[in-house]
Amino acid sequence: MTNRISGILTPHITPVDSQGRVDEDRLCEYIDWLIDHGVDGLYPNGSTGEFVRFTPEERRRIIRVVVDHTAGRVPILAGAAEANVKETIAACDAYGEMGVRAVAIVAPFYYRLSAEGVYAYFKEIADTVSVDVTLYNIPMFASPIDLPTIVRLAEECPRVIGIKDSSGDLPLMMRMIAAIRPSRDDFTFLTGWDAALAPMLIAGADGGTNASSGVVPELTRDIHRAVKDKNIDEAMRLQYQLLPLFDAMIGLGEFPEGFRAGARSRGWNLGPGRVPVTAEQREAINAAQRQIDDLVDGYLGRA
Amino acid sequence: MTNRISGILTPHITPVDSQGRVDEDRLCEYIDWLIDHGVDGLYPNGSTGEFVRFTPEERRRIIRVVVDHTAGRVPILAGAAEANVKETIAACDAYGEMGVRAVAIVAPFYYRLSAEGVYAYFKEIADTVSVDVTLYNIPMFASPIDLPTIVRLAEECPRVIGIKDSSGDLPLMMRMIAAIRPSRDDFTFLTGWDAALAPMLIAGADGGTNASSGVVPELTRDIHRAVKDKNIDEAMRLQYQLLPLFDAMIGLGEFPEGFRAGARSRGWNLGPGRVPVTAEQREAINAAQRQIDDLVDGYLGRA
Amino acid sequence: MTNRISGILTPHITPVDSQGRVDEDRLCEYIDWLIDHGVDGLYPNGSTGEFVRFTPEERRRIIRVVVDHTAGRVPILAGAAEANVKETIAACDAYGEMGVRAVAIVAPFYYRLSAEGVYAYFKEIADTVSVDVTLYNIPMFASPIDLPTIVRLAEECPRVIGIKDSSGDLPLMMRMIAAIRPSRDDFTFLTGWDAALAPMLIAGADGGTNASSGVVPELTRDIHRAVKDKNIDEAMRLQYQLLPLFDAMIGLGEFPEGFRAGARSRGWNLGPGRVPVTAEQREAINAAQRQIDDLVDGYLGRA
Amino acid sequence: MTNRISGILTPHITPVDSQGRVDEDRLCEYIDWLIDHGVDGLYPNGSTGEFVRFTPEERRRIIRVVVDHTAGRVPILAGAAEANVKETIAACDAYGEMGVRAVAIVAPFYYRLSAEGVYAYFKEIADTVSVDVTLYNIPMFASPIDLPTIVRLAEECPRVIGIKDSSGDLPLMMRMIAAIRPSRDDFTFLTGWDAALAPMLIAGADGGTNASSGVVPELTRDIHRAVKDKNIDEAMRLQYQLLPLFDAMIGLGEFPEGFRAGARSRGWNLGPGRVPVTAEQREAINAAQRQIDDLVDGYLGRA
Repeated sequence: MTNRISGILTPHITPVDSQGRVDEDRLCEYIDWLIDHGVDGLYPNGSTGEFVRFTPEERRRIIRVVVDHTAGRVPILAGAAEANVKETIAACDAYGEMGVRAVAIVAPFYYRLSAEGVYAYFKEIADTVSVDVTLYNIPMFASPIDLPTIVRLAEECPRVIGIKDSSGDLPLMMRMIAAIRPSRDDFTFLTGWDAALAPMLIAGADGGTNASSGVVPELTRDIHRAVKDKNIDEAMRLQYQLLPLFDAMIGLGEFPEGFRAGARSRGWNLGPGRVPVTAEQREAINAAQRQIDDLVDGYLGRA
Repeated sequence: MTNRISGILTPHITPVDSQGRVDEDRLCEYIDWLIDHGVDGLYPNGSTGEFVRFTPEERRRIIRVVVDHTAGRVPILAGAAEANVKETIAACDAYGEMGVRAVAIVAPFYYRLSAEGVYAYFKEIADTVSVDVTLYNIPMFASPIDLPTIVRLAEECPRVIGIKDSSGDLPLMMRMIAAIRPSRDDFTFLTGWDAALAPMLIAGADGGTNASSGVVPELTRDIHRAVKDKNIDEAMRLQYQLLPLFDAMIGLGEFPEGFRAGARSRGWNLGPGRVPVTAEQREAINAAQRQIDDLVDGYLGRA
Repeated sequence: MTNRISGILTPHITPVDSQGRVDEDRLCEYIDWLIDHGVDGLYPNGSTGEFVRFTPEERRRIIRVVVDHTAGRVPILAGAAEANVKETIAACDAYGEMGVRAVAIVAPFYYRLSAEGVYAYFKEIADTVSVDVTLYNIPMFASPIDLPTIVRLAEECPRVIGIKDSSGDLPLMMRMIAAIRPSRDDFTFLTGWDAALAPMLIAGADGGTNASSGVVPELTRDIHRAVKDKNIDEAMRLQYQLLPLFDAMIGLGEFPEGFRAGARSRGWNLGPGRVPVTAEQREAINAAQRQIDDLVDGYLGRA
Repeated sequence: MTNRISGILTPHITPVDSQGRVDEDRLCEYIDWLIDHGVDGLYPNGSTGEFVRFTPEERRRIIRVVVDHTAGRVPILAGAAEANVKETIAACDAYGEMGVRAVAIVAPFYYRLSAEGVYAYFKEIADTVSVDVTLYNIPMFASPIDLPTIVRLAEECPRVIGIKDSSGDLPLMMRMIAAIRPSRDDFTFLTGWDAALAPMLIAGADGGTNASSGVVPELTRDIHRAVKDKNIDEAMRLQYQLLPLFDAMIGLGEFPEGFRAGARSRGWNLGPGRVPVTAEQREAINAAQRQIDDLVDGYLGRA
């Protein structure tokens, strides 16, 4: 397990100011708080970071700020998907030079590519870049990276050093681990589906990249620790605490508005986000804030 | 946990002879074998039993034979869905009088009913029958029974004493348990998705109704026991053994042909089933038999 | 076009009395009304007839009554799907002896069969029965019969003389016609998706089996006639009249409750159906009755 | 019908050179050919133009080139979706100043937005921009724009002057026309689903934005003309010619590789595209080239 990425990495929200610009000061403060509260790494420009709603220049600036401010305190997994292979490779190499631990690349989206097309995309990137790559499988948003494709890339590409899977499919996680770990002991398996974090870790995943860790970093850290310590009862008890909070956040307004609300429960105003909502949606979010506050307070023992 | 159904109940194949008739002798022998090899109960007329491919008279006869031959050695959960509410109620009461532990009723299929319609169906049945009822949620085949409907039925219907969930959705299992167990300590949660048996049990499910238990009853029993004994490493190790075997069987030919092949690996010829296959499919099944034999032998240490 | 089935055949509701029993007298009266109002054929035991909610004996009795009472006035297409191949073949032959024009057999449902399995099922039936067979493709409820399978069956099985397609997929209809008609001039193409009736007929379908024809048989007849007469503007004008009525009925309560409400707008009380509904659903149906009445009255010029 | 966009607009491929750069010369030549062969308009930066695979700067340059080179010969519908509302508005206004007839904006993709979120997105854009906007509904790739949302936007936003619908859902097209045309005679309905072009036009659509028109512009033009001339038999005869060609192109390799192959059949080498393919995929494309050549030749009478 020498070199694997391990623990909980936060795919954090990108704070914006009232003008909708990236709020770099707030971003730095928020990162400090996350690290202080126990996250094992940071994952800027993930889905929770709304990477597709920022420009290529903004995305690059965000990584720059996070890398510089983190200054090696925790490893950084940088979302690096751009418009096409060439642009993605350029971003990967730029982030590699900045010093990220690895990049995470979501499968092509908008068009649904075939398994062959997904393979071709990652193969070309992995054979070119000079930074470690984690695949990012999120079939509800992007072309699925199916099991044979994951195995094929793990076998052929030393630069592919892990996968973040947000499918929530526990048997798939087990199939991946069973197929790849025997020949690639260095390969990292991360889950992005908070609703099954503890079960995924129990099944052998190394860690998670979970939006909830931007709201209750103590809770996700404790789940990870409990599993590592073989304290399964405790891990599941905590998972039963996480689930209703995650459910309340994931379904609220447009993603990731619910996690923004969660951050507010911790005192973080990360701004309005980059997706417009109707007055009706705004009201629903406000109405749910109280429930989320209560769930967070309940967990923190502040109730 | 006084009265809950617990452990692994086998949704067993219905043996037929070369004429396609129910082979009652073989059925009795197979049941004896299952009980001798550690299954905690039997579930005739489930999906694996191809209930929809038998006539109402055959279905009733199957339950009769299983009940009589089992003679109380293990509890019986009898699949009781018929063409409509009235017929289903009649079957439920008939099976109750025969002495089954409970009936299992799949949500209406063919038509996809709304949540309200699913509720109305189960409510009318549960308020009328004189036998315990378990709901059977299998959204890939039948109308889904969604979480609010399950909770509503658990709250309103004392006769509804459990659910068999074959969705494979682990967070759904946790949501059900979190919502229902506090007020219904007698409510049984069973999983029908063998690929996640150990994780479902770790999450709090009482047991499973797993087709794999008709092939490797020792293995599913050991998974259940390991979880009960808090031996989670062992449970997951066994789950990693079960998964490739389950995958090989679930995807073979038309369901449940793969489980029929699995039974052959244990020496059981349960007949040709009730669904015609092409010569090409037959060849594929024969080709896969060897792989399934090897997986079974590997587990049994016969390799 | 010598021998093809042509025009609009009504997949009629099965009237039941307040006890839920098949109301044979009402059924006969309703059939008379349909024939008098211009339907070109009858299709008992279709999806609208709730075939799965009746027992095998009831299904057989329904065909008997419809055949006898129709007495050759219009051709009958009899829904003949039973629990398995053997039972289905028996039903087909029984209906053939009764004198139906053809049987319609839905692909296996509950389990989703592979294309090979669907082929094997229909092949075995078609090679055995002594009555003409129409395939019934309704992928939202049953295993899909894909294009290659349809073509294969059309090529190999003289007894397969047509298809009823309820997918609503217009290019699929065109693909089927393009692939089959050159070699099988006797092959009938029927659409079961009322929302696209006129376009399907314009694309070359021979007719339709449309639930709406049980409510406004004049309208569906006129659409068919207009297309035959190359009066496309009129056909589309009428289709624009049919669409909102169909939409109001298809989405109401549980299928086919909306069509039952439509029949009430024409003065037909066909009973409560075989699926229980909640009080809430009943209210919604009552509320929609007025709108359906208005749409029917508007069409009939009774407004 | 005063001001509506009418006829067939080509969502054309973006030619790239062997380096993968936009090949502006080839683009201009190709545009000339399209206009000479009868297309009624151009639609750069559509799905066929692989808009997501180009950078914001490239996208803007593409519109600039197309507008300048077209020089008013045909109207231009410019794909204008960018990373977020602000960027999209800026692109819209830039394209408006360049002189495009209207912009086309696909619903947000990657994330699946709710109907409210889709409404909020288009509402903010439509209330801000100074150019006409057409909505672009393509539910297989982006958040669906459902019927109530389309109607709401048509009612509230004068700047929203039409919709391009690529759902292929014919009844939806009729529902849209029925709901909007009575109050918005200026509202344009375009279909992007070539497989149903003639039926959509017969149902009242004003025109189409069809990738096939980049390959056989004469054929799509003739379909449009035939429907306008009420020559429905001819329109459907041509549609039966278009369908197998479209099917051969849409399913080949990764979209839009098949249309690139189609262009080659007309002598246009538009370059390798922006999505990597495997050697295996390349072989499949080469193998299919002959079939596409034959279909094109057959249509052109060159066979």
